[in-house]
Amino acid sequence: MMKTVISKEGHEVSIGDNGPTVLIGERINPTGRKRLVESLKAGDLSVVRELALSQVKDGAAILDVNVVAPGINERDVLPRAVEALMAVVDVPLCIDVNHREALKGALEVYRGKPIVNSVTGEEKSLNAVLPLVREYGTAVIGLTLDEKGIPKEAEKRVEIAAKIIERARSFGIPAEDVIIDCLSLTVGADGQAGLLTLEAVRRVQETLGVNQTLGASNISFGLPNRMLLNQVFLSMAIQAGVTCPTVNPAKVCTAALAADLILGRDRFAMRFIKDYQAKQGIEL
Amino acid sequence: MMKTVISKEGHEVSIGDNGPTVLIGERINPTGRKRLVESLKAGDLSVVRELALSQVKDGAAILDVNVVAPGINERDVLPRAVEALMAVVDVPLCIDVNHREALKGALEVYRGKPIVNSVTGEEKSLNAVLPLVREYGTAVIGLTLDEKGIPKEAEKRVEIAAKIIERARSFGIPAEDVIIDCLSLTVGADGQAGLLTLEAVRRVQETLGVNQTLGASNISFGLPNRMLLNQVFLSMAIQAGVTCPTVNPAKVCTAALAADLILGRDRFAMRFIKDYQAKQGIEL
Repeated sequence: MMKTVISKEGHEVSIGDNGPTVLIGERINPTGRKRLVESLKAGDLSVVRELALSQVKDGAAILDVNVVAPGINERDVLPRAVEALMAVVDVPLCIDVNHREALKGALEVYRGKPIVNSVTGEEKSLNAVLPLVREYGTAVIGLTLDEKGIPKEAEKRVEIAAKIIERARSFGIPAEDVIIDCLSLTVGADGQAGLLTLEAVRRVQETLGVNQTLGASNISFGLPNRMLLNQVFLSMAIQAGVTCPTVNPAKVCTAALAADLILGRDRFAMRFIKDYQAKQGIEL
Repeated sequence: MMKTVISKEGHEVSIGDNGPTVLIGERINPTGRKRLVESLKAGDLSVVRELALSQVKDGAAILDVNVVAPGINERDVLPRAVEALMAVVDVPLCIDVNHREALKGALEVYRGKPIVNSVTGEEKSLNAVLPLVREYGTAVIGLTLDEKGIPKEAEKRVEIAAKIIERARSFGIPAEDVIIDCLSLTVGADGQAGLLTLEAVRRVQETLGVNQTLGASNISFGLPNRMLLNQVFLSMAIQAGVTCPTVNPAKVCTAALAADLILGRDRFAMRFIKDYQAKQGIEL
């Protein structure tokens, strides 16, 4: 498996290469978070900072930052949020944008090599995003959807992944800087959704060998016992080839550590035991 | 994937064939259960009955029965335990023995098609156990170890599995009546143990396609947070090809249901939701 290295002011994070699972914290995202929306509208970044600190404490090694919501000017707010985050945490950022200009503004202020979230297999998206990825030397998340939407067949998602990697290469972006997202939908709506995604992840891993992210929270939408469902799905996704899932670390960090331990990526169970002790309040 | 059908007095249980995961309850086993040992020594089967009822309530569809302990005469006690179990529960049994004569006695009294636990790849074992499996028309668990012990390489475990299936066939036992156990050891002792077992399971599934069991409790021995580790390992094992794990159902039944739901084996999430409601005390 390839190794993707990203950074923030000299602090590097390696993804893949049989190393531990790297959690991307998903919580700096206005969807369903009224308090965050209100604070951003008021130009107040305190909630952003708070969500950053708590996610890092809970095990996030990268933070996704998204400020897209009605009434928020992404072009103004995103670069300010990126600055605020760089001031309080050392983890690299995954810059999650709607508009190209907002992305450009955020990349201008970022110090290091972030992840751009995201490009799709659509021509419009490839041509808008990849030149910036190349210009700023970032990594990029490639979503396996195109002009026809999200394919129902695992094989077609793999084809889109291959297309994104190939197109990135033509722009001078190495394959290891493309992180594929095979997209997880909700099993409550489609009973085959989980199986399909896991199959796509497995094939991307086998045939393309790039790093992969996946949102591991949608899968359980509308169902009871969501935390366990998300933990089980995340374990399976990691086994299949996901190396940097996008998650709420407070909910699934221990399951990811358990998965790493079982998959031989945690020597002497050091990380697993340290996490347990920290959560029990045991001094090391 | 093949389908294995076992039974107890007309009550059939199907394993495999893309159906739901079938849990074999592991708790009727004297190892580490002093109260069970003492009761068996006194000729008292009340603890056996109690462990049967609680495991079925917790989601076991098959019960393993093992009475091997110092001071217990397996030849006398095993057939009595089998009779006692048949009187209180309708689930088929997995008869777990040390001595051929004890097995013969248990098979004589059993009404239906049980699982014999177990045969190994050792010549002595194959020649002692398979004729009884053939004579009584049972299914059998094949452990992937031989005269040299448990192989350190996944590929060798698969070779032993293939040998057991082939030898069973030569005795007139169909492949679908052989359930392979790739054997899980403790990740606390060997960090690669989990990965190795999962790799063996995946290859057995791909190349032999038979049903598989696996003890999913040993993996976490000596580590903290055992329940989560066992749940994560079980999820991965089910994903890799285990169809009838041997477990404590009280600890992992919900994780197995979550795995089935994610893998598209639980239409409309009926089983997952029903389990949730039952545990919340919600009337259906």
